[in-house]
Amino acid sequence: MTPDGRAATATLGVVGGGQLGRMLAEAAGPLGVEVVVLDPTPDCPASAVARDQVVADFDDPDGVRDLAHRVDALTVEIELAGPDALRAAATEADIPVHPSPGTLSTIRDKLVQKRRLREAGVPVPDFRAVESESDLRAALDDLGTPAMLKARTGGYDGRGNVPVADHEAAAAALDRLGPALLEEFVDFDRELSVMAVRGPDGVATFDPAENVHREEILRASVVPARTSGSVRERADAVARETVAALDGRGAFGVELFEVDGDVLVNEVAPRPHNSGHWTIEGAHHSQFEAHVRAVLGWPLPEDATERRAPTATANLLGGVDGERPVRPVVGGERAVALDADDAVTVDLRPAVDRAGVHLHWYGKRHLRPLRKMGHVTATAATGDEDHDAADRAEDALATVRAVRGAVDLG
Amino acid sequence: MTPDGRAATATLGVVGGGQLGRMLAEAAGPLGVEVVVLDPTPDCPASAVARDQVVADFDDPDGVRDLAHRVDALTVEIELAGPDALRAAATEADIPVHPSPGTLSTIRDKLVQKRRLREAGVPVPDFRAVESESDLRAALDDLGTPAMLKARTGGYDGRGNVPVADHEAAAAALDRLGPALLEEFVDFDRELSVMAVRGPDGVATFDPAENVHREEILRASVVPARTSGSVRERADAVARETVAALDGRGAFGVELFEVDGDVLVNEVAPRPHNSGHWTIEGAHHSQFEAHVRAVLGWPLPEDATERRAPTATANLLGGVDGERPVRPVVGGERAVALDADDAVTVDLRPAVDRAGVHLHWYGKRHLRPLRKMGHVTATAATGDEDHDAADRAEDALATVRAVRGAVDLG
Repeated sequence: MTPDGRAATATLGVVGGGQLGRMLAEAAGPLGVEVVVLDPTPDCPASAVARDQVVADFDDPDGVRDLAHRVDALTVEIELAGPDALRAAATEADIPVHPSPGTLSTIRDKLVQKRRLREAGVPVPDFRAVESESDLRAALDDLGTPAMLKARTGGYDGRGNVPVADHEAAAAALDRLGPALLEEFVDFDRELSVMAVRGPDGVATFDPAENVHREEILRASVVPARTSGSVRERADAVARETVAALDGRGAFGVELFEVDGDVLVNEVAPRPHNSGHWTIEGAHHSQFEAHVRAVLGWPLPEDATERRAPTATANLLGGVDGERPVRPVVGGERAVALDADDAVTVDLRPAVDRAGVHLHWYGKRHLRPLRKMGHVTATAATGDEDHDAADRAEDALATVRAVRGAVDLG
Repeated sequence: MTPDGRAATATLGVVGGGQLGRMLAEAAGPLGVEVVVLDPTPDCPASAVARDQVVADFDDPDGVRDLAHRVDALTVEIELAGPDALRAAATEADIPVHPSPGTLSTIRDKLVQKRRLREAGVPVPDFRAVESESDLRAALDDLGTPAMLKARTGGYDGRGNVPVADHEAAAAALDRLGPALLEEFVDFDRELSVMAVRGPDGVATFDPAENVHREEILRASVVPARTSGSVRERADAVARETVAALDGRGAFGVELFEVDGDVLVNEVAPRPHNSGHWTIEGAHHSQFEAHVRAVLGWPLPEDATERRAPTATANLLGGVDGERPVRPVVGGERAVALDADDAVTVDLRPAVDRAGVHLHWYGKRHLRPLRKMGHVTATAATGDEDHDAADRAEDALATVRAVRGAVDLG
């Protein structure tokens, strides 16, 4: 019996109701877990599949407190959640909150995050704190150019990251960003990521994914990563070291650079991560189900994170200029009249008529440039197990890229 | 843009909000399809994962009309839905309804159903219409005893089916049941079922399941069925003949008796079916996703119904006397105070801590004897493909039976 008096196995409060909150709710359903999300946008993506929505800003103490009193445990799907409001609400309602507010604070500030990892012996690119022009000059002298200037807080999907080629450009960027860190330029061979989940009984990891970014936005992921077995093992080990340096339960997305047969940690997200979407169809239990279980203190079966098939995903990103209402259809017009004349019609048929392909559409009302509107996943067909896993993953990647190319998002 | 003005790919109205409606909504979520359910019980199982619920009786014309005006297509998850109300509402709202009201009418009356199938050449057990004492006497003379007396309408999970051993017992049962049919007793070797889905481009079938009933309630299903390849092929062919005799799109559950290497159709359900729950984890796309797509007129990829792994499911059935509130927990007490002192605490830990096992808990508020409260599914582990599929299915069946035995439902 939940605080709402319903016969759910538990009720989970999620701060943030975007696609990650939506997929958390989708994973919670079969477990009998009800979800209440908090999001400032009425009818946010998660609201369609959740029990209810609290309409409030992510860091509004009253909203978070309202949420806490309606649920058995709290979690977040967005870095904008305020650690202090979360800690206060969870304490007052006497419920657990994961990721821990302390971990959220550590991760929100990229300088604090990097220092924590380095102190724990986790390999990271070299970096320097930069608050002033003179810090910047010294840091550029140490690390050389090109280098990456990163805002300490507020960055997301590459926002707040500026590659700088010389001192003048760096100084101008620092003026815009405020307190920052300068990071050595890493000429990586490949980008990888590992989803790690800390539950009540320890840490489990999913297979490393290989990720393809463009304009600092994730475009596609493929599993197994097209690298050596030793790099995959090293990625797993470093992801485990990373999570060991951070407390609290739940999923952690550990982004890695592969360089010369070794890996460096780029960034950590204390939540399910875009590069782990492949786990929905590709693993026995998804990163979302694993996160729900971990936050609630439920066990994770030993095979949970095992790969079921070579798998690839591609994001469906908004391609229009500015913001436009979106009208998703499958093959032809919908019967219903529109109230928005400037809506962009998106035909999703190429994402639903192809063997091995699974559509995930997030139900956002508006298209924006590079906005994540959905994703497609392809799993390798069963019955061709003789075929090498790497080749099957390559086929899956070709499939999702073809689908992505066939869906016109403006 | 849906009638509600949201950016869903479509909105689906489902008459009935039990576990089948819940699993339909769970399958609809990733497709960007929103679900509105109609059910007389506030906070019905499906309501936790659906956009909204219309609280009304299944055959209430006003309720069904309200639902129809809020959605792009109508479907049903329960035989109690009224074909006339559905047809009228869909016509008025100018939206499709599947299964077709005509098919619903045919199937609701077991005599009409059996006649339709026999006329189409589908193998069925021999039967006679029985309205009077003299019909009964003649039918018993023709078909012999034991035989099965079945109410023409209102039967579900074995309710309305009475095995009769002699004329006296049969006459007493007929008094209770009203208009009925008498069916020859089939001494079957095995019970099988095939989920078939008619979409806009034709019919697709899932692998036949082998089903274990007790007290006429499904207890467990296993795929592949532990029978010969030729029987599996025959089951598939007969399921296709069955669906060919019925119009309208959507999923059809075709229950079969295996007798001496051949099959007879026992009954058809024009909707997702308990024996097809294995498809959620065991096939590329589940029976629920296939039904959603079919009703909306979306295509089904060619591999959609392909089996991913040998799979078994077992139902978690209420075991108490009478009706009691249920309090599901995972390992120990929940923090929240109860308002129902006579609640039965059910510890679901055995269903969430075992490798290969997936929990589906429906969120019903009350336990009742043999009520379907949830189910568990086990898929065979990957990596042992060398192991015979039948053996792996057997292992999966043993697993779900062990889990079912370990969950104490009163």
